[in-house]
Amino acid sequence: MNPVELIHKKRAGGALTRQEISWLLDGYVAGRIPDYQMSAFLMAVFFRGMTEEESSAFTDVMLHSGVMVDLSDVPGIKVDKHSTGGVGDKVSLILAPMVAACGVPVPMISGRGLGHTGGTLDKLESIPGFRTNLSVEEYHKVIAETGLVLIGPTAEIAPADRKMYALRDVTGTVESIPLIAGSIMSKKLAEGIDALVLDVKTGDGAFMKKYEDTVALAKALVAIGTHAGKRVVAFLTEMDQPLGFTIGNWVEVLESVECLRGKNVPDLMEVTYVLGGAMVWLGGKARSIEEGMKQCRSAIWSGLAYQKFLEVVRRQGGDAGYLEQPERYRKPRHRVDLISKQNGYIESFATRNIGVLATELGAGRQKAADVIDPTAGIVLKKKTGDRVRTGDVLVEIMADRDAVVERVRDELAGCITIGQTQVPPQPRIRAIVDSEGIKPWSTPQLY
Amino acid sequence: MNPVELIHKKRAGGALTRQEISWLLDGYVAGRIPDYQMSAFLMAVFFRGMTEEESSAFTDVMLHSGVMVDLSDVPGIKVDKHSTGGVGDKVSLILAPMVAACGVPVPMISGRGLGHTGGTLDKLESIPGFRTNLSVEEYHKVIAETGLVLIGPTAEIAPADRKMYALRDVTGTVESIPLIAGSIMSKKLAEGIDALVLDVKTGDGAFMKKYEDTVALAKALVAIGTHAGKRVVAFLTEMDQPLGFTIGNWVEVLESVECLRGKNVPDLMEVTYVLGGAMVWLGGKARSIEEGMKQCRSAIWSGLAYQKFLEVVRRQGGDAGYLEQPERYRKPRHRVDLISKQNGYIESFATRNIGVLATELGAGRQKAADVIDPTAGIVLKKKTGDRVRTGDVLVEIMADRDAVVERVRDELAGCITIGQTQVPPQPRIRAIVDSEGIKPWSTPQLY
Repeated sequence: MNPVELIHKKRAGGALTRQEISWLLDGYVAGRIPDYQMSAFLMAVFFRGMTEEESSAFTDVMLHSGVMVDLSDVPGIKVDKHSTGGVGDKVSLILAPMVAACGVPVPMISGRGLGHTGGTLDKLESIPGFRTNLSVEEYHKVIAETGLVLIGPTAEIAPADRKMYALRDVTGTVESIPLIAGSIMSKKLAEGIDALVLDVKTGDGAFMKKYEDTVALAKALVAIGTHAGKRVVAFLTEMDQPLGFTIGNWVEVLESVECLRGKNVPDLMEVTYVLGGAMVWLGGKARSIEEGMKQCRSAIWSGLAYQKFLEVVRRQGGDAGYLEQPERYRKPRHRVDLISKQNGYIESFATRNIGVLATELGAGRQKAADVIDPTAGIVLKKKTGDRVRTGDVLVEIMADRDAVVERVRDELAGCITIGQTQVPPQPRIRAIVDSEGIKPWSTPQLY
Repeated sequence: MNPVELIHKKRAGGALTRQEISWLLDGYVAGRIPDYQMSAFLMAVFFRGMTEEESSAFTDVMLHSGVMVDLSDVPGIKVDKHSTGGVGDKVSLILAPMVAACGVPVPMISGRGLGHTGGTLDKLESIPGFRTNLSVEEYHKVIAETGLVLIGPTAEIAPADRKMYALRDVTGTVESIPLIAGSIMSKKLAEGIDALVLDVKTGDGAFMKKYEDTVALAKALVAIGTHAGKRVVAFLTEMDQPLGFTIGNWVEVLESVECLRGKNVPDLMEVTYVLGGAMVWLGGKARSIEEGMKQCRSAIWSGLAYQKFLEVVRRQGGDAGYLEQPERYRKPRHRVDLISKQNGYIESFATRNIGVLATELGAGRQKAADVIDPTAGIVLKKKTGDRVRTGDVLVEIMADRDAVVERVRDELAGCITIGQTQVPPQPRIRAIVDSEGIKPWSTPQLY
């Protein structure tokens, strides 16, 4: 085998064998195949795609490049959730303890904010003391003891993916469905899970805006997981407006805590209950997604979900006192309101831009080395369909950084469209994808 | 500007501005842009192509990365020829002195054998003492004094192309029309020429087998040259059988000398006269290609072309005695004949394979470091359409290397198809491409 032959084969639209993929990736990780050959190969994959078999082999080789956590001694069916990322997407913070409270162990490895989207890790780390950098050993111990663990990627898991992702990032080869799917699934399959629920976002605030691309990604993810012997379902969810009211880190933790205490933020809780219900179902604790959703609702209403959250926060070193008495938390130095200059109804949000503005406030990173300001954030006071009157507060903006809140407020004004007719509420979840294909989804009424 | 943005732009099918191309290539040559980003960009170019403006800018930036020879003090319109490479393509050896003998200065920078094709440099260097590695200064001096110079690429000319070509070779990005065209033209435009005749080969023995690809390449080459203010014409010539009777180095020099002395090898001399006639016409010494062809024929018949060849050989250090008395030349250690086992007519040749077999004899390189055996070669005794009888010698095979001639003879038997009906002679030149487009070509009868 030689790398140029394999590049030619992919360039011509051929499918590499498992043996060829393994030779290529192992050689890359070992340094025998240089970056410049791998990047040419990745660009050929961007144009030619991969077959289902190739994607699975690709994922499997990356998965086996590092430690595969064995959680078989932890009782129960371990289920995780992964989201492709959105604006205000704090679902994991509510869902993980909620599902764990239903008796399904949730071993969750999350990521940091990327581009215009936030990351669960950054949110968790806004809780003073919370440690996300557990070793594989500690990870194993926490999931065994509390039925829930929330950590970041470790150097031991799927190192091939880390090396490859860094290369894709600087060579314009990120946006390829088989490469995205392989990257996500190699890390998820290494966690020690038995089943997985995927939240594949679509719309302006998602990484992939086009619905067809989102469907293709969901199918690719489910196919890889199924090939690997896991039960996987994916939901296609709207990211046409921020999820919930808050965008930032500490503000999102606070909104999550309110929801864990029983507040109903409709769009946020629709997604959380459906994904959670599917996890409880896959975890063998319910006979259907709907029954799983009802158990999740009970876990919230009983307070068990919130208790589980406090437990894991304490177990991972976090100071839960700040959750109980949020007024103790450090206040942002700057805070301004965006006031409506007209009457009408909120028609739409430029969601991606709002994500970018939150990043500029300090809620995310523009470069990997940037330091996050946990207090920076945006709080929407109105959502799509809401009545607005002149003088109403539309958005609250806060940050530690000087001279940025006013500029962000002015730019936010251009991100919100106010119309004269009321948009009816749209379902947040468009479809479900499992190993048998895609089906439209309609969320059952729980209340 | 940043490299990933430019990669994204090309990946999406956009056209880079001249400024962007210049930033990218200059950064690459200076080492600011790493190989892995350039290879991803090149693969995107493979899939997306380049516009005429992009190709021209790309060529121009590579051209300006090194020395541009200024031959403006050499009187006359300087004209060169470039061939995309074939099997048995010894045209340059006959054509360059022939055109120079017509009074048109020919500054020629040739290449070495590549893959299954031979290279003019390797052929010239089979003449004992012949030096092809002249400096730019010597090059200038020889063309000024003899009206002809035959050298190899120098490190000073188009270094960006050299760095890029080495990268393309190991990243599966060679076969892209704009990249091939840019690579050829950047070197040709740096030579100090005023006009250029291109021989773009098509068919089994060419680098590009498909006729449409050849036409696209010819058009791209002519467009770049025209953009750069040069007069350029391209001919699309057949490479469905080796050109002339010989394939190798010293054997090709001998066949060229025979032709320079007046022998008519029909396919070889058709191509030589047409390309040469076009050069004489572009060089301002004839009013049409046909008139240029007649002058070329006179240069051969008068002996002036051969005298010019002897002059340049001596001027560049070659021992012309070997041309006058070829029996002095070292004999290959092994020589075998392929004998026909049937009656009939030669129907076709597997030309590319014949080129590969010549390489295996030692006439070309399989790796860059391989040493060429100047005596190794293949001499066809029959060409397409020729009558063959059982027992006739079809091919003579010679080499210094042990134990290769018999194997090559046996494999050559499979490269020659003998049929029962005579194939009529086919014209060797299919079309001419100039800045106005492509036109069918019919070679005027000279005899």
